[in-house]
Amino acid sequence: MNTHAYPEIMSAVREQEPLVQCLTNSVVMDITANVLLAIGASPAMCDTPTESADFAAVASGVLVNAGTPSYEQYAGMRAAVAGATAAGTPWVLDPVACGGLTERTRFQRSIALEKPSAIRGNASEIIALANLDENAAGGRGVDSADAADAAIPAARVLAERTGGVVGISGATDIVVSEGRITRITGGDPLMQKVIGTGCSLGAVVAAYLSVGADPHDAVVAAHAHHSAAGAKAAKTASAPGSFKVAWLDALYTLTSDELEQYTTFEEESL
Amino acid sequence: MNTHAYPEIMSAVREQEPLVQCLTNSVVMDITANVLLAIGASPAMCDTPTESADFAAVASGVLVNAGTPSYEQYAGMRAAVAGATAAGTPWVLDPVACGGLTERTRFQRSIALEKPSAIRGNASEIIALANLDENAAGGRGVDSADAADAAIPAARVLAERTGGVVGISGATDIVVSEGRITRITGGDPLMQKVIGTGCSLGAVVAAYLSVGADPHDAVVAAHAHHSAAGAKAAKTASAPGSFKVAWLDALYTLTSDELEQYTTFEEESL
Amino acid sequence: MNTHAYPEIMSAVREQEPLVQCLTNSVVMDITANVLLAIGASPAMCDTPTESADFAAVASGVLVNAGTPSYEQYAGMRAAVAGATAAGTPWVLDPVACGGLTERTRFQRSIALEKPSAIRGNASEIIALANLDENAAGGRGVDSADAADAAIPAARVLAERTGGVVGISGATDIVVSEGRITRITGGDPLMQKVIGTGCSLGAVVAAYLSVGADPHDAVVAAHAHHSAAGAKAAKTASAPGSFKVAWLDALYTLTSDELEQYTTFEEESL
Repeated sequence: MNTHAYPEIMSAVREQEPLVQCLTNSVVMDITANVLLAIGASPAMCDTPTESADFAAVASGVLVNAGTPSYEQYAGMRAAVAGATAAGTPWVLDPVACGGLTERTRFQRSIALEKPSAIRGNASEIIALANLDENAAGGRGVDSADAADAAIPAARVLAERTGGVVGISGATDIVVSEGRITRITGGDPLMQKVIGTGCSLGAVVAAYLSVGADPHDAVVAAHAHHSAAGAKAAKTASAPGSFKVAWLDALYTLTSDELEQYTTFEEESL
Repeated sequence: MNTHAYPEIMSAVREQEPLVQCLTNSVVMDITANVLLAIGASPAMCDTPTESADFAAVASGVLVNAGTPSYEQYAGMRAAVAGATAAGTPWVLDPVACGGLTERTRFQRSIALEKPSAIRGNASEIIALANLDENAAGGRGVDSADAADAAIPAARVLAERTGGVVGISGATDIVVSEGRITRITGGDPLMQKVIGTGCSLGAVVAAYLSVGADPHDAVVAAHAHHSAAGAKAAKTASAPGSFKVAWLDALYTLTSDELEQYTTFEEESL
Repeated sequence: MNTHAYPEIMSAVREQEPLVQCLTNSVVMDITANVLLAIGASPAMCDTPTESADFAAVASGVLVNAGTPSYEQYAGMRAAVAGATAAGTPWVLDPVACGGLTERTRFQRSIALEKPSAIRGNASEIIALANLDENAAGGRGVDSADAADAAIPAARVLAERTGGVVGISGATDIVVSEGRITRITGGDPLMQKVIGTGCSLGAVVAAYLSVGADPHDAVVAAHAHHSAAGAKAAKTASAPGSFKVAWLDALYTLTSDELEQYTTFEEESL
């Protein structure tokens, strides 16, 4: 493993154009689809219970994000996960606002037992999903009160339970799997002033997991592409409207050199 | 009361970062969330019936906008209003297309009896909501046929019934509460060429109502911030794509001086 | 008929400001509404079963796009089509991902029997909708595997069955009705990197059909406006974030001369 795997995985996504099925919240569907197109993937927001399992069988990757769940979408998510599991399609769980609301927390903890290929959330969501300490879970919607580091024990528990990879988003992102921890520094604080930057990362992770690379490396590369584009965008934009435009442009234009230039990786074995 | 309260309320929103729960239509969720982030607030579009009441109890403010209501979202709105009322959370009603469609008109008139802290709509919606004159209610979706002034009697009736504040959007916005009328001139005609500028104002009003200022002043300040950013954006953009970007930037960068510079206030006692 | 009818139809849309009711997928509601505003139309995304028929009776045109259909939205679509048919409102069917998923394919083929004024899709969707050759229908979501030309026989069958106009989107768009075929060359490959460019075209077609021009000419003019704006945007933007902004601007600013300059028409009688 060396950091040079990440640019290669970014290229593989652009070459393979993975089809990513997103069962996600209504707020971020537009930006999630645009982010997937910008990184070279192809989005499909198929979440109807009668279709989602069939679609998951042909999709390259699946994202499950219960940010604004209807009863029908919950059923669609269950079906998609079953379809993805049966077909061997990698799928990602984004436990939005886990811990803050009873019904979704129950759903998220339950669906996490189905062994997602990756989980991506902020520190409080990862802690709440692992159910290690109810009190550590913040109650402030999708904001994270905890620093990413505080969620490492929870991420390790989840990685062990699922056999998958866990990404903790923060000023420094942390990717955890059994035996490995990687820290990715990059991004820009303006990313938090654009809705869906976090949620779209889950879709990027699903795209990256589909191209046949080592799963831990793929999740790191997804975070790096996402973050580096943020850092590049911040070179030309200083307010959220223009930053969003510049970030989408940067996701599309980012070169391998820029991926390295705007991101710092720190690897740790456990 | 003097106009200088408005910049202070704008600063208070930026400092307190209110969490605004939006039960709103699917079309404007993205821009509403981005507008809230740009003004310094934090959005959460939690509208599921099993979660919305609990969320309204912890939110700083709540917006109810039945622009594309599903049966489930109607139930979520009822629950959120109950939760907000029980917890004392300020909530805003945006009566989208009131008068033009039977079912939503019935819902909007009914939920208005629950005493929203503020109501925001265009003239025909305010008139239809007050049910003063069925024939005055336009039937052309979200466009307003009436000038804002024509809705003042209806706004006064609603203000009296609810004890709250009523904002009428137009070329000049008019804010009405018991004993006070304030006119806010600003904005730009291009705002009508970007979807969700009106709907997002309801969310801005909810954010402003949460910071502890006088409610009438808070609603005026919300309109002023929204409008002044439009006027500022029009300095650099002359078509809707770039205008939207410039407006989001202006909401974020607007200074107290610019708030005064781009807006004219006219206060009237009743 | 000469190509000069197209600029006049574009002007008629801007003058008449048609009200377009869109029953469409959650992913593209924002961009569809913004596209309609940019071309001079007025959007309303009314899709609730209890309201959609009444709205279709007063709307200028209706779009039905089952990209992310809920059970409730399916019912809303049935009601809207009944309302539009009874009132003589032109309506457009966009058969998103037809052929790839069982339930929506069944719905789309069934609703196509209600004689839409126009159908707009890519080649594989048009072929699948006509049900000429199941094997020709791709299974890759909203991407089209077939070149537009391959769908001409299917489009002719659909035009004959419905008495309407069929638009096939591709590098060159093809518009087919009984006795006529028109090819429109324009656009830019970056349009495929922005979500909703295809789906919003269905709404543009609905707007254009409402202004009283010959339906075939109206559908061609809609494609031309949409494509020419893409070609104009590509003069200043080379990545998807800024391209989207420039395209929305170009839809709004496009002149009659630019419509001719950026588009080539090729007419064929059958």
